[in-house]
Amino acid sequence: MLITAKRLYFFEEGNLEMKEVLGGKGAGLAEMTRAGMPVPPGFTITTQACLDYYKLGRRFPDGLNDEIKSAMRELEKRTGKGFGSSADPLLVSVRSGARVSMPGMMDTILNLGLNDQTVVGLARLTENPRFAWDAYRRFVAMFGSVVLGVEKDRFEHVISDEKRSAGVSSDPELDAAAWQRVVANDKEIIRTATGKDFPQDVGEQLHLAVEAVFDSWNAKRAIDYRRFNKISDDWGTAVNIMTMVFGNMGEDSGTGVAFTRDPNTGEKKLFGEYLRNAQGEDVVAGIRTPVPISDLEKMQPEVYREFVKYADQLERHYRDAQDLEFTVERGKLYMLQTRSAKRTAEAAVKIALDMVREGQIDRASALRRVDADSLDQLFHARIDPKESYEVLCKGLNASPGAAAGAIAFDPDTAVEMAQRGPVILVREETAPDDVHGMIASKGVLTAKGGATSHAAVVARGMGLPCVAGCEALVIDMRARTATISGKAFKEGDSITIDGTHGVVIDGALKLIDPPSELPPWLAEFLSWADETRTLGVWANADTPEDSRKARELGAGGIGLCRTEHMFMQPQRLPVVQRMILADTSEARASALAELLPFQRTDFVGILEAMAGLTVTIRLLDPPLHEFLPSLEDLLVETTELRLTKGTEDPHYRAQMAVLARVKAMHEINPMLGLRMCRLGLLYPEIYAMQVRAIFEAACELRARGVDVRPDVMIPGVGTRQEMRATYEATKEVADKVIAERGVPVAYKIGTMVELPRACVVAGELAEYAEFFSFGTNDLTQTSYGYSRDDAEATFIPRYLELKILSEDPFQVLDRTGVGHLMRMGVERGRAARRDLKIGICGEHGGEPSSVKFCHEIGLDYVSASPYRIPIARLAAAQAVLEQR
Amino acid sequence: MLITAKRLYFFEEGNLEMKEVLGGKGAGLAEMTRAGMPVPPGFTITTQACLDYYKLGRRFPDGLNDEIKSAMRELEKRTGKGFGSSADPLLVSVRSGARVSMPGMMDTILNLGLNDQTVVGLARLTENPRFAWDAYRRFVAMFGSVVLGVEKDRFEHVISDEKRSAGVSSDPELDAAAWQRVVANDKEIIRTATGKDFPQDVGEQLHLAVEAVFDSWNAKRAIDYRRFNKISDDWGTAVNIMTMVFGNMGEDSGTGVAFTRDPNTGEKKLFGEYLRNAQGEDVVAGIRTPVPISDLEKMQPEVYREFVKYADQLERHYRDAQDLEFTVERGKLYMLQTRSAKRTAEAAVKIALDMVREGQIDRASALRRVDADSLDQLFHARIDPKESYEVLCKGLNASPGAAAGAIAFDPDTAVEMAQRGPVILVREETAPDDVHGMIASKGVLTAKGGATSHAAVVARGMGLPCVAGCEALVIDMRARTATISGKAFKEGDSITIDGTHGVVIDGALKLIDPPSELPPWLAEFLSWADETRTLGVWANADTPEDSRKARELGAGGIGLCRTEHMFMQPQRLPVVQRMILADTSEARASALAELLPFQRTDFVGILEAMAGLTVTIRLLDPPLHEFLPSLEDLLVETTELRLTKGTEDPHYRAQMAVLARVKAMHEINPMLGLRMCRLGLLYPEIYAMQVRAIFEAACELRARGVDVRPDVMIPGVGTRQEMRATYEATKEVADKVIAERGVPVAYKIGTMVELPRACVVAGELAEYAEFFSFGTNDLTQTSYGYSRDDAEATFIPRYLELKILSEDPFQVLDRTGVGHLMRMGVERGRAARRDLKIGICGEHGGEPSSVKFCHEIGLDYVSASPYRIPIARLAAAQAVLEQR
Repeated sequence: MLITAKRLYFFEEGNLEMKEVLGGKGAGLAEMTRAGMPVPPGFTITTQACLDYYKLGRRFPDGLNDEIKSAMRELEKRTGKGFGSSADPLLVSVRSGARVSMPGMMDTILNLGLNDQTVVGLARLTENPRFAWDAYRRFVAMFGSVVLGVEKDRFEHVISDEKRSAGVSSDPELDAAAWQRVVANDKEIIRTATGKDFPQDVGEQLHLAVEAVFDSWNAKRAIDYRRFNKISDDWGTAVNIMTMVFGNMGEDSGTGVAFTRDPNTGEKKLFGEYLRNAQGEDVVAGIRTPVPISDLEKMQPEVYREFVKYADQLERHYRDAQDLEFTVERGKLYMLQTRSAKRTAEAAVKIALDMVREGQIDRASALRRVDADSLDQLFHARIDPKESYEVLCKGLNASPGAAAGAIAFDPDTAVEMAQRGPVILVREETAPDDVHGMIASKGVLTAKGGATSHAAVVARGMGLPCVAGCEALVIDMRARTATISGKAFKEGDSITIDGTHGVVIDGALKLIDPPSELPPWLAEFLSWADETRTLGVWANADTPEDSRKARELGAGGIGLCRTEHMFMQPQRLPVVQRMILADTSEARASALAELLPFQRTDFVGILEAMAGLTVTIRLLDPPLHEFLPSLEDLLVETTELRLTKGTEDPHYRAQMAVLARVKAMHEINPMLGLRMCRLGLLYPEIYAMQVRAIFEAACELRARGVDVRPDVMIPGVGTRQEMRATYEATKEVADKVIAERGVPVAYKIGTMVELPRACVVAGELAEYAEFFSFGTNDLTQTSYGYSRDDAEATFIPRYLELKILSEDPFQVLDRTGVGHLMRMGVERGRAARRDLKIGICGEHGGEPSSVKFCHEIGLDYVSASPYRIPIARLAAAQAVLEQR
Repeated sequence: MLITAKRLYFFEEGNLEMKEVLGGKGAGLAEMTRAGMPVPPGFTITTQACLDYYKLGRRFPDGLNDEIKSAMRELEKRTGKGFGSSADPLLVSVRSGARVSMPGMMDTILNLGLNDQTVVGLARLTENPRFAWDAYRRFVAMFGSVVLGVEKDRFEHVISDEKRSAGVSSDPELDAAAWQRVVANDKEIIRTATGKDFPQDVGEQLHLAVEAVFDSWNAKRAIDYRRFNKISDDWGTAVNIMTMVFGNMGEDSGTGVAFTRDPNTGEKKLFGEYLRNAQGEDVVAGIRTPVPISDLEKMQPEVYREFVKYADQLERHYRDAQDLEFTVERGKLYMLQTRSAKRTAEAAVKIALDMVREGQIDRASALRRVDADSLDQLFHARIDPKESYEVLCKGLNASPGAAAGAIAFDPDTAVEMAQRGPVILVREETAPDDVHGMIASKGVLTAKGGATSHAAVVARGMGLPCVAGCEALVIDMRARTATISGKAFKEGDSITIDGTHGVVIDGALKLIDPPSELPPWLAEFLSWADETRTLGVWANADTPEDSRKARELGAGGIGLCRTEHMFMQPQRLPVVQRMILADTSEARASALAELLPFQRTDFVGILEAMAGLTVTIRLLDPPLHEFLPSLEDLLVETTELRLTKGTEDPHYRAQMAVLARVKAMHEINPMLGLRMCRLGLLYPEIYAMQVRAIFEAACELRARGVDVRPDVMIPGVGTRQEMRATYEATKEVADKVIAERGVPVAYKIGTMVELPRACVVAGELAEYAEFFSFGTNDLTQTSYGYSRDDAEATFIPRYLELKILSEDPFQVLDRTGVGHLMRMGVERGRAARRDLKIGICGEHGGEPSSVKFCHEIGLDYVSASPYRIPIARLAAAQAVLEQR
């Protein structure tokens, strides 16, 4: 059953609230019409008609054609013109208009209604054959390319040829006869390309144009855009049909676009351009240079004042900065479009602040207005907009920001090269033992891995630009060269990467640095968010530097301090490896004793930076073999040694011993292997060392009067017994150190809830755990059975394409599945321990819709990478506002 | 707060029902005493006292010593003897006695109460110094070894020395003086070993003995046994203290043990042994050979008749075959123990059948009596009990049964060697491309992997004996040799493996075959189970042979027919590899077209074997790279080729191309990667081929009049969209084939529920799925975050040891966590589709306690390996009985 609601609205019948039915453009036209502004008469075909069209397998719903015809008769009545009449032809524009504007949707068709007869009438009526044939050729070319799908260039070539044979260099120099020839050639092109004549029947023209609008809803670009911007495929698009007005009817005509405020800076002043004696597409085409909108005041002061009045009226009406289109026809102003103005994050925040000051909106509306995710733009270097460049290849925009530097193919080389200049680490993929190289680099480029691959996650944590999974990158480690989209690069060659947009560029471009601290306007804006939100916003930070940064960005604590990166630093890794490879527990103990002072120093730095705030320290989490050399490299190396040096060679024997150990520790599915608290239970001395280091550091600082608040987090607990055993072991060491030092330090022991079973037995865990932190990376992984390391490189992209998934669940928290388990964890945990503190420290903690979900299910805090803290602060406030 | 209930019961105070408090032995003694049988007076210290002892950190609860003392005074009163009195010394035995008997618990202490004084009194009283000193030396040695922990051998050596110096060869030839010297030497040994004198204080003797019983509850062997047999650590053991009677007081004395029925065959006749003039330990020590119990009739007919009367009375009383101990002291019979007789599975079933026929028990009791798991013994070859052998090493008893044959180190060699004789496949670990080698072998031995490793799971599915994770096995593939516990083996050398007990033996032992079909007594017994159970019992079977076997063993359908093993057969694998490595979809289609007839033939065989019953066919499940050569092997091979042949060598180049493809398909966590329905969605042509093969086979058979019932199962669905897309794709192909052939075939499409998210969204899945089958292997894996491939080899054994886990969740279904998700899946699935058929096809489907859980949550069927079907049938019946 198709809904048979009204499918066609004249502009005066609609209003602002009908965006879902009329689309954004249609609703805007309706609103302006109702406000008494001069909008050319027209009507909107509803989004429902589009959805019906798809339900019927791309067929017009019964009756729609008749409804359009009768609406056109009404337009004829209002304008006194005739659709298809050579006497006084009614011409219309046809525009798509979805609920929000999006790329890929059908371009505008202007001058529809012209044909071989009506063009003559138009010429006669306007006494301007050149104008009429110019209008006709525009229509034929637009219709040919947009509706009939003929290559646009072919129509352009006709004009170039015409200009060449006329010996002129610009379009205005062509006369009526020239345009007439162009029309004839364009029609021939259409006949050849489509096998059909250009339609002379104006009814058919309109039908085909409406159909083309409907079809454009499912154009690849539109689908891709919706996918990326999380817009439903079920909205559909409306179609706007409006009587034509002409900005190209002489020097008292023209066309313009304007923003009521500067969309880049947010400054309150009319911002836009005006092009005299032109149609809208001339502005876009850039054939002539428009003048600033303010120049219109000098040219046509009446028109300008009227426009300013409308602009002001519309901004007040919508209580938001507007993006306006208008045309002046022989001295008369027509408003053609109003919509909320697209703006940069900076402009968005500043406009919101200003409008509150102006009394136009309240703080809540201001907070609602700014897209939380867009704040991310503010905290990364970007390519200087003045640079012009070609993109070499695209990859995943894994961690935002731009970086330029010399290529290094391995972490050690990166460290060494970084002493001489900026470096980009270029790797097949990264692993924990690349981290020191990442630290030394300005950016990371990988050939493999998705948005939650090691490179992406670690880079985001460091605020390091990263382009990941760049398939066009092929590295030859032996030759130490790479090709990117076929172009060859040596180590040391310069490239630029833009992790915000996922692109790679040859050579080092000029970059613009991000602000070094929270700019005052953002600090003020976020302080409003803080007043509104109830959810805490903490940080994931592993170093004193990150902790300080997080604090500056507004973190209320550290929700996840990983300790494994501390193990990875170059001077420590050999000790860590000795610890892992130890044959006896004495040897292990001695290596651990060497690591203890390092860890203590780390913790002193972090706890001091976060004085007065909680620091949640997670004990060692990754499988131990991550700290060892790669099995694959060892296999190749030992084979080489065997064949070149023989099996008696001492180096061969030594490496074979390492290989044996690495093989023994090798796991088929390390993500589900000997890691997390399992490590701490099988090698209790590792956790004991870490806990000792934490509390030695805490006691040392406390003795110096620093307010330290360390919480110890056990990763990957899935059973009551794991929780109990690790809780007791931790408490024993902590209390022992505190007793030894004689300094009281308050602390909590809790767990990272990251396994489905942990959610089910949350009540049992809460018998011991004093806090929970949802590790939603792993929880997503195990709930779906998707390997974070692999899925984003293999089937998730295809799943998104096939619409099996509407979002990548590693990016946007899956409320239905993972969310249900989280709810269960919260309910069962709090039932067992009323004051259980609960947070989240997966990547989702910095993603706005996930933050809102966390608010909804009653978490106490979210923990995000430092640079995503502003986003989370705003999203948390928006969550409160959405619930009101 | 310790429970201060009664901690000490005289035998006449207890009864049969008090097993939990008095232990099995104590309850038996109480019951016999109450029945008026001649039991020497005594009392039992409760299991609660033992638990209190542990709660107090191995300290006697307050007052317990006093209670023991006053009970001893009561014994003195009843016997007229004095504890520690030289005039008429009261001697007692001290025995442990838990709720069920278990190895590792403290051995019996006899003759407690003897010391340097009382021994003299005993000698005087019995007028038999030799008897008295013999009794004393026994006590000192037992006490020294059992209570004080001195090596037993040292006491044995004293006797050997004494015999040597006396020039005699047997103990009875030693006189009183000799035994007196032995006592002196034994005491000296104790003094040297413990630094303390043998305790002369009889109260201290008793205290230490009771303490030793308590301590033995947590002896390593006892703990291991409990772990293996899933017995709680929280039961504790009771202590039985009984007045001594002496079977070694002359020819009219003696001691014996007897079963009321034959514990090996179940035959109804008194079965046991009697040893004249001896104490119980002499029977155990094997110094003299006892006579069959029937001989007692000739020696002491009165005693025999009395004993037969009691045996009969006890069996009727307990309504179960009993294991009895007794002593005759100077012509008077004393009953010392009665307990349920341990028996083989065959005996258990036959005794149960007989007792029903005798009217002693009803069928329900009979079904309750037999341990379902024990039936497993009946379906495997075993080592001839007449063989004597030494165990070379132990591994995991991964798949039961014994096998003997020549070692083969790879599957191809196994296939080739199998033409000449039986083969044991010996591998580091197995992978799917070893399956053809496993099929050709009689057994599998692996160095790595747990009880759910590939080798174990596949071997169990095939009913092939397997010892897995045998750490003492080191394979050198290059030399094609192996060492097992240091002993060297070449390919072709013979070994025997016993997968029931997890042992490896040098050389080929003689084996006894299992019955080739269900023996009639078992068929009858299981028919009672079938009458009782409501849960269906289906089979996991991948071949026509397995299907027939499953049907013979009582399968009501096939719950899991895996299709990947079909891909692995030697003539098919190259085609499968071509399909995977295909660059174009044409190349892939052509390889699939080649595979289609193979699969169709497979399905014809299986569907025909199961005519009239449902066959649930799972579409391809494992990650594709499992079908490709190993990445590690390729790395070594290409490195070798590079160094020996150079990079221009065509073979090198070909192998590098394969390596590149294998690398591209390599996944870090394949278990969470591109597998299950993800394969079917990314490569729809694979599933389309499989579905076509299924329905072509079904139509072919249906046309021949065979009643085929194919159900198609989609693996690993986690979202509604996956279900919908695979459902629709499957239905389309199925209906197309049915229409092409014009033969109606009814079928269902369902899914394997094996991901936590699938349980949460079960309602959404059931919109399409017509049945669910819980894949609890994967569901356990993802719920716990444990890799099946790794965990059983790494942390699970240690977790069991540390009591973090009480069971391996891959062996016994985790009711709390995984079970909760299953319940959720059942509830939500049935809410969406009332008649949803739900089963389980993980390994748990053949494990009794898991089967019972499946019954509890309302599943329709369990599906198990063919040989575990009898177990599941019985367990399903027991589940019904337990609910009554």
